[in-house]
Amino acid sequence: MLIVMRTDATAKEIERVVEVISELGFRGHPLPGAQRTAIGVTGNQGAVEATRFENLPGVAEVIRVSKPYKLITLDLKPEKTIVKVGDAQIGSDELAIIAGPCAIESHEQAFAVAAAVRQSGAKFFRGGAFKPRTSPYSFQGLGEAALEILAEVRAAYGLKIVTEALDEAGVDLVERYGDMIQIGARNMQNFSLLRRAGRSSLPVLLKRGLSATLEEWLLAAEYIMSEGNYNVVLCERGVRTFVQHTRNTLDLAAVPAVQRISHLPVIVDPSHGTGKNHLVGPLARAAVAVGADGLMIEVHNRPEIALSDSAQSLTLEQYDVLIDEVRLIHNVVAPVPAI
Amino acid sequence: MLIVMRTDATAKEIERVVEVISELGFRGHPLPGAQRTAIGVTGNQGAVEATRFENLPGVAEVIRVSKPYKLITLDLKPEKTIVKVGDAQIGSDELAIIAGPCAIESHEQAFAVAAAVRQSGAKFFRGGAFKPRTSPYSFQGLGEAALEILAEVRAAYGLKIVTEALDEAGVDLVERYGDMIQIGARNMQNFSLLRRAGRSSLPVLLKRGLSATLEEWLLAAEYIMSEGNYNVVLCERGVRTFVQHTRNTLDLAAVPAVQRISHLPVIVDPSHGTGKNHLVGPLARAAVAVGADGLMIEVHNRPEIALSDSAQSLTLEQYDVLIDEVRLIHNVVAPVPAI
Amino acid sequence: MLIVMRTDATAKEIERVVEVISELGFRGHPLPGAQRTAIGVTGNQGAVEATRFENLPGVAEVIRVSKPYKLITLDLKPEKTIVKVGDAQIGSDELAIIAGPCAIESHEQAFAVAAAVRQSGAKFFRGGAFKPRTSPYSFQGLGEAALEILAEVRAAYGLKIVTEALDEAGVDLVERYGDMIQIGARNMQNFSLLRRAGRSSLPVLLKRGLSATLEEWLLAAEYIMSEGNYNVVLCERGVRTFVQHTRNTLDLAAVPAVQRISHLPVIVDPSHGTGKNHLVGPLARAAVAVGADGLMIEVHNRPEIALSDSAQSLTLEQYDVLIDEVRLIHNVVAPVPAI
Amino acid sequence: MLIVMRTDATAKEIERVVEVISELGFRGHPLPGAQRTAIGVTGNQGAVEATRFENLPGVAEVIRVSKPYKLITLDLKPEKTIVKVGDAQIGSDELAIIAGPCAIESHEQAFAVAAAVRQSGAKFFRGGAFKPRTSPYSFQGLGEAALEILAEVRAAYGLKIVTEALDEAGVDLVERYGDMIQIGARNMQNFSLLRRAGRSSLPVLLKRGLSATLEEWLLAAEYIMSEGNYNVVLCERGVRTFVQHTRNTLDLAAVPAVQRISHLPVIVDPSHGTGKNHLVGPLARAAVAVGADGLMIEVHNRPEIALSDSAQSLTLEQYDVLIDEVRLIHNVVAPVPAI
Repeated sequence: MLIVMRTDATAKEIERVVEVISELGFRGHPLPGAQRTAIGVTGNQGAVEATRFENLPGVAEVIRVSKPYKLITLDLKPEKTIVKVGDAQIGSDELAIIAGPCAIESHEQAFAVAAAVRQSGAKFFRGGAFKPRTSPYSFQGLGEAALEILAEVRAAYGLKIVTEALDEAGVDLVERYGDMIQIGARNMQNFSLLRRAGRSSLPVLLKRGLSATLEEWLLAAEYIMSEGNYNVVLCERGVRTFVQHTRNTLDLAAVPAVQRISHLPVIVDPSHGTGKNHLVGPLARAAVAVGADGLMIEVHNRPEIALSDSAQSLTLEQYDVLIDEVRLIHNVVAPVPAI
Repeated sequence: MLIVMRTDATAKEIERVVEVISELGFRGHPLPGAQRTAIGVTGNQGAVEATRFENLPGVAEVIRVSKPYKLITLDLKPEKTIVKVGDAQIGSDELAIIAGPCAIESHEQAFAVAAAVRQSGAKFFRGGAFKPRTSPYSFQGLGEAALEILAEVRAAYGLKIVTEALDEAGVDLVERYGDMIQIGARNMQNFSLLRRAGRSSLPVLLKRGLSATLEEWLLAAEYIMSEGNYNVVLCERGVRTFVQHTRNTLDLAAVPAVQRISHLPVIVDPSHGTGKNHLVGPLARAAVAVGADGLMIEVHNRPEIALSDSAQSLTLEQYDVLIDEVRLIHNVVAPVPAI
Repeated sequence: MLIVMRTDATAKEIERVVEVISELGFRGHPLPGAQRTAIGVTGNQGAVEATRFENLPGVAEVIRVSKPYKLITLDLKPEKTIVKVGDAQIGSDELAIIAGPCAIESHEQAFAVAAAVRQSGAKFFRGGAFKPRTSPYSFQGLGEAALEILAEVRAAYGLKIVTEALDEAGVDLVERYGDMIQIGARNMQNFSLLRRAGRSSLPVLLKRGLSATLEEWLLAAEYIMSEGNYNVVLCERGVRTFVQHTRNTLDLAAVPAVQRISHLPVIVDPSHGTGKNHLVGPLARAAVAVGADGLMIEVHNRPEIALSDSAQSLTLEQYDVLIDEVRLIHNVVAPVPAI
Repeated sequence: MLIVMRTDATAKEIERVVEVISELGFRGHPLPGAQRTAIGVTGNQGAVEATRFENLPGVAEVIRVSKPYKLITLDLKPEKTIVKVGDAQIGSDELAIIAGPCAIESHEQAFAVAAAVRQSGAKFFRGGAFKPRTSPYSFQGLGEAALEILAEVRAAYGLKIVTEALDEAGVDLVERYGDMIQIGARNMQNFSLLRRAGRSSLPVLLKRGLSATLEEWLLAAEYIMSEGNYNVVLCERGVRTFVQHTRNTLDLAAVPAVQRISHLPVIVDPSHGTGKNHLVGPLARAAVAVGADGLMIEVHNRPEIALSDSAQSLTLEQYDVLIDEVRLIHNVVAPVPAI
């Protein structure tokens, strides 16, 4: 159920509706939009009587929801959500750039890359502290030591730190050191982790699972939002298909397909999406042209000795060239009306 | 690295080798086989000097491992592992049957199904307490209350309880109430969960992920084993493809493909593997014919009102017929030499 | 539209209905069943008036067809079709075995393999004359010379010859030398070829395309049947997925899924379905257990020097063992009632 | 084998080398590049002696080819091929636009769409005469009547006609009425058709098969080229995956991946690649940004009554907007150096 408030509804009236929802044993999720606030109702098995709400002050309309989505949907909030990460944003007119190495390997490496990222005008720095590796015998990340380095990067360069949490304890740590919790593709349906992220005050970057349908991906976001955290950014990073010329098949159609259903921002990771250095640039350009709100890019000061994802990391020089390219395209695409 | 002990090596000699491995900062994993014990060594970045071990008493041979696997591999243990769950077994000559409802819904439902499962001669009862559901608004299982019912089923029927843990706290609960920890397809690369299961004294049933390669699946088992829990059973349950006439595409070739690499038992779940009641029987027969060590089957006393997986659950009557069919095939296949 | 004749309808009455259909500009396809004959009507854009037929002598019922299928469907013919190839059959109680080398390479090779195939009791010999090869520079088959060898095999051993036609001219040649036209996976939607095969008097073996849905596959059979050739056998040979431990992913669930919709026999090719010698046996056993009407198997007297598909061909010895195995399973499965 | 001629080699010297190749029973394929001509040699089983050529006048170098490709490869011709279709081009600096309806339905429809296509500045008109339809009962195209309409469109608007041939007889017809032979996805490995197209004087547009790997696609082009027709344009049109929010998954990474291996131009069909009207625009923009040499787009004067592909056709208005958008992006991307 979805309760649309009148455009002149007061904060108090909104609050009162949420209270009534709570008294009935459900949970109200008020999402303010440009024109009006709407309140999603979750926790109800089956239908709730609309009449209980229709006559409350400030309520414009009560709408039954037949789709599987309640909170991610444009029905609830017709304007795109702008996720704020401190003074940076994802989902606004500005193309968001999240760049950095796959894994934090050392203070020196992190700072060398961060300087270039800062220099490019990007506002977000990525870097793995805990790496989800296929083999238990591969480098697993530096752990909390990496988070400490990331915190220093933040202090030194003012970049927002985006880093992955592998489990609930990992969310605690990201909350302590970082600015945005990344949930990786392999954990997209780790529902305990999604719920924990949903109770965090940090925004969440939710990568699409390797074989996730659009519906499964959006419902994973719904898991986070249903716990009260509405600051979710979706990230397309390629899916697994029979195709072997790339590590994954980047499904760029997912970007406009998400935008047709959801108000959440959606960005693209062409590094994992291709797995090959020479394809990152072309697919980054395509991602911006398709209408993505941002890019997540792996860059390394010395890709040839990177401890992970060496084949797909850009050099600092390549990264610089690419950022200029994608900004040009973004300038052309941004004002283009959707057809 | 892999240290093969002589056939006449004593327990003390084996212990001493493991000690030396520990002293060097690594971990030794002794796996006794029919002829001899071999000891896998993990925790080493790069090569260890073989000469450190070659002259220890009882050591027959030291072998470098170039494959990504160290513990799941037939190189370490050439005979199939028989996983013991109390007095029941998976991997022996007897076809292992794990049957029960998707989710535990009530005492009455669980007992009605358990009676039929017991009656069929099956030794394992499955039933979900915590359900990983795509939508946060779907039935999520009865939680600990379901585990209490499962414990009563165990007491009443002597069936071994196989139930899923969704997170590390869930493993604690399964350890308290159940006999075997199931790790679901969506969590196959939840590495924190795998590690926790690797520190459990209960055996683990590891389902293949929806888009997992054979290597990724086996390395997930390797995560569990590298923590010291060697009682792992693999379960093929279908992968995600373009095919739409089934919920998943059951990859039966995975069974002999696993058996060519690994000593771990491998079973098949034709219920999730097809998602359709009328296909469960034929695919269960095929799974036994292909050489699976067991079957995991969803059965419900009233599938039409099941709270989850209604379309794929067998009725008690269908289940009875099926068990007879698969036993006939198992009798024919079992002595067949591999070609 | 589907016209069901009364059980006591005479041949003359059936003929008359077909005539009336023709006079209206459509085509009637009478398919005799165990109880009654039904006549499928094709060629109509949109609906035909049922009343035109309901009162013709011998007509029991006129049924509108809302499914995409008109001729392959159990609605038209509720009993499985037995495709007769001379005095051999596919679709009867006997398991049909089609065996032989990938490509005919020489008289000596063909006869060596044929002798073993004959010895095993199989009734069909396969062997490629025109090979559809990914590269124009690979061995493309011996062409008509191979067909001549196949005709000699037929004369010498009484085996029915199944061989692939790559194009319409190829159908002419198979008609001259062979007994059954194979249409390969890559040509499953070569509609001109399907139509030409539909005008042949020889039965057709229609392999499933590498990425064909069940509906596409059945509609390809419908193309053949709509031209008047009702002797079509379907062959599952694996589909293309992300899985890399086999050349293709054998979709055994397709067998019972086809059988639920269509009266056409369906066989399985575990050689192409796996692409690996050591997996052919287990998957052949599984195919029989799942309920396939037959098997198509690549066997070679000297696989190590085969000019194509060397990795998946069985030796004559492996083939012998396998045939015994699958017959044992077929004996067990055949009388088993479907659940 | 690949024979690189000196930059100052004369036409006569090149001719002589090709003659020698022929005398040896092989075929020489001279491909002139910006700097020099190289000659691919096909038809040889195994190695040819390089020394036979090294001392012929004008020969700079003889190179053994270990890759599966001989003619499509940048090794043979390092500069991109510009395919000339009359006075129009594909592969040059200008973005090639091929637009028109899925199927030619009537003179009126064709002319209404053609007028808009001409107006937009596009130089190519597409329109199906023979449609490869999944069901034999669907609209199959107007056949030769459609080709006659296409010829009139050409006469009236000066547009180059691109239309599909389903079989060898179809190639004859396209040669009579059209300017460029389209080979559809379902026929990508119809090798008889590829060979026939390879003997045509018309350029060929080769669509990627639904489950074709990059290598299979390029080798299909190699089939055409090995017959002497070097004017091949590749067209990415989406592949089949588990993804269901689009009809196919557009694999845009295939564009730069092809360009890294082959000198052939590669264009993108976002209409089939998405199957949804509202996704055609974003993916067309992305295709241009990724570096495609052109677009193939379905446009219809009245999509709501189109006889095929109604859901994915653009209206004339949408088409106009889109062409402006993609030209803007092309202007930005074209001079961008590859990274």
